[in-house]
Amino acid sequence: MMMNQEAYASNILTGTTCFGMLQDDPRWQVAADRNDLILLCDSNTEKLCLPLLRELLFTDSGVPPCITIQAGEESKCFGTIEYLMRALDQHGATRNTILVNLGGGVVSDIGGFAASIFKRGICYVNIPTTLIGQVDAAIGGKTGINVGHAKNQAGTFYFPIRVCIHPLFLETLPETELNSGLGELFKYAMIGASFSLKQLHTLATNTPGALNDIISKCVQYKEFIVTKDPEESGLRKVLNFGHTIGHAIESSFLDMRLPVTHGAAVAAGIIAETYLSCHLNDLSHQLLEEATGFYLDHFQPLPFEGGTEASVLGFIYQDKKNSKGAINPVLLDKDGHPEWNSSVTADDILHGLRYLSSITH
Amino acid sequence: MMMNQEAYASNILTGTTCFGMLQDDPRWQVAADRNDLILLCDSNTEKLCLPLLRELLFTDSGVPPCITIQAGEESKCFGTIEYLMRALDQHGATRNTILVNLGGGVVSDIGGFAASIFKRGICYVNIPTTLIGQVDAAIGGKTGINVGHAKNQAGTFYFPIRVCIHPLFLETLPETELNSGLGELFKYAMIGASFSLKQLHTLATNTPGALNDIISKCVQYKEFIVTKDPEESGLRKVLNFGHTIGHAIESSFLDMRLPVTHGAAVAAGIIAETYLSCHLNDLSHQLLEEATGFYLDHFQPLPFEGGTEASVLGFIYQDKKNSKGAINPVLLDKDGHPEWNSSVTADDILHGLRYLSSITH
Repeated sequence: MMMNQEAYASNILTGTTCFGMLQDDPRWQVAADRNDLILLCDSNTEKLCLPLLRELLFTDSGVPPCITIQAGEESKCFGTIEYLMRALDQHGATRNTILVNLGGGVVSDIGGFAASIFKRGICYVNIPTTLIGQVDAAIGGKTGINVGHAKNQAGTFYFPIRVCIHPLFLETLPETELNSGLGELFKYAMIGASFSLKQLHTLATNTPGALNDIISKCVQYKEFIVTKDPEESGLRKVLNFGHTIGHAIESSFLDMRLPVTHGAAVAAGIIAETYLSCHLNDLSHQLLEEATGFYLDHFQPLPFEGGTEASVLGFIYQDKKNSKGAINPVLLDKDGHPEWNSSVTADDILHGLRYLSSITH
Repeated sequence: MMMNQEAYASNILTGTTCFGMLQDDPRWQVAADRNDLILLCDSNTEKLCLPLLRELLFTDSGVPPCITIQAGEESKCFGTIEYLMRALDQHGATRNTILVNLGGGVVSDIGGFAASIFKRGICYVNIPTTLIGQVDAAIGGKTGINVGHAKNQAGTFYFPIRVCIHPLFLETLPETELNSGLGELFKYAMIGASFSLKQLHTLATNTPGALNDIISKCVQYKEFIVTKDPEESGLRKVLNFGHTIGHAIESSFLDMRLPVTHGAAVAAGIIAETYLSCHLNDLSHQLLEEATGFYLDHFQPLPFEGGTEASVLGFIYQDKKNSKGAINPVLLDKDGHPEWNSSVTADDILHGLRYLSSITH
């Protein structure tokens, strides 16, 4: 979308004034005046976040009609998308409607995708309510659903007209969800988003409110990357640091019925991929040690068993079955800068997983 | 899609040399060399058009893997899209795969939509095999599926990297299908695509091959319009001339189990909307008479009965239930130029339908 591409560069509003700024947006005003807003919640955010949003954004106007989907990754499927097409129609949505996604990554992925295809595309606003949503999922215009086991197999690059990142929503989160978000912050620190692991450590042991500065830095960093490479032809891949191995770890433990959070899996992936960076790119061992220390301080050790490594490796190759077999994780070069053209072998990955296993036992 | 938007301006190849030009396209060459092409057919085109395509395009290389869907409008649903996501994955499709849609409007609508969302968007080529496909559906980047009774309720604006319009495919068509295409040519003549009804009359009574010049003119005209207004904010709406009433006629007769072709319904819609243009915009009656003559010469009279008019009106308002009730067909102004900001009443439409009914009885 041409119009839409222009929008992403400066569409993110952070801090307690974000909703006032949203209300000043002429597109929002037109839609609000015409009662052309529709909310999307999941079963959690309807209960925990909608009351807060009512106070912060809809005091005067009343809350727009709300469509609610089941919370959880299982909702990321075509069934939900078809349901949303019908629900939007039933609520009288037109090409001028703005869809307002209130929730974490699942809600913004689904809602963004639905907005991108309803009547060939309507505008949407993301209001991320989780830490992962605020620093990652809700920004950058990637939308999508899963098809069978293939994550985000169907989706679009389609940018929200506004993203409102309000710190109060983080107070609705359980500890595990905040910890999961910490995995993504860990990633940003490692790939150079102008804050150190030390700063992150200090803040992570503090209240959620103190995270605001870090969140802004992550958002700015991601915006910078996405502006340069919106459709992930190259540079944007650096945002996947930790995720090649991390995703496989997540799938593998889920498969063993020992589910771990996305953030914990990504944090583990970061450690394995940092190890590979030392091994293959002569990255300094000091950074690996620092990262390992941070990891052990903030994340539960993973329940590695005999066979876990083979299972993770299996998931990495299963995920890649269609790309001629090459595994291309993001690694750090010897100066610590992320690079996205690495190619590694199964043996390399096994070494990384063994390092990970060794430090968590 | 930014990359994609750049592509539409000159992506249409017409005539018997079109496949040679496609083979000269570097994007095509790269994908062909890597066996990264996948064909999409429907149950008709697999039988009737694929053998021809083999001779014209794949003599040296062999035919790529082919996914076949059921022919017919019923395939335009989420079930087919999900099936295609899985089938593309099973055929090893990557972000570099080019999907080649061989068929009429249903195939290019579905295939284009699938291409626009598979792994957040892959390239595709349209090879339209019907007259409607060649002059309308396959060009202009509109993709989509139906949701329940709502036509094209879900879709994208997403442009093919190439459209190959080869005259030989028209010879595979039954007479009714060619006649249906004539409805769209009728539209182009009426809205000013640099050929007259008289020329169209002469050609329509000739062999399909003689239509080539007219097809090129339609394609150029649509390209011109789409380049100026790709996402139908204004100007592009003129391409809907005849369709507001035509679609309702199509739905209404289908509902009465007296199905008429899309082209015949659009042709009837053109007559009714031309009548409205005389009635409301002082368009010259001479043009209405000329159009009426052309219509009666080339289309079967519609089986109007008592109640048909009310039924058509019902479908027009049903279609519009969500747009605050205004009906905005494209009309011709007093100089015969299409305009897209007209607003008409139910009474106006009834008058148009009565005129249509009167000339066909």
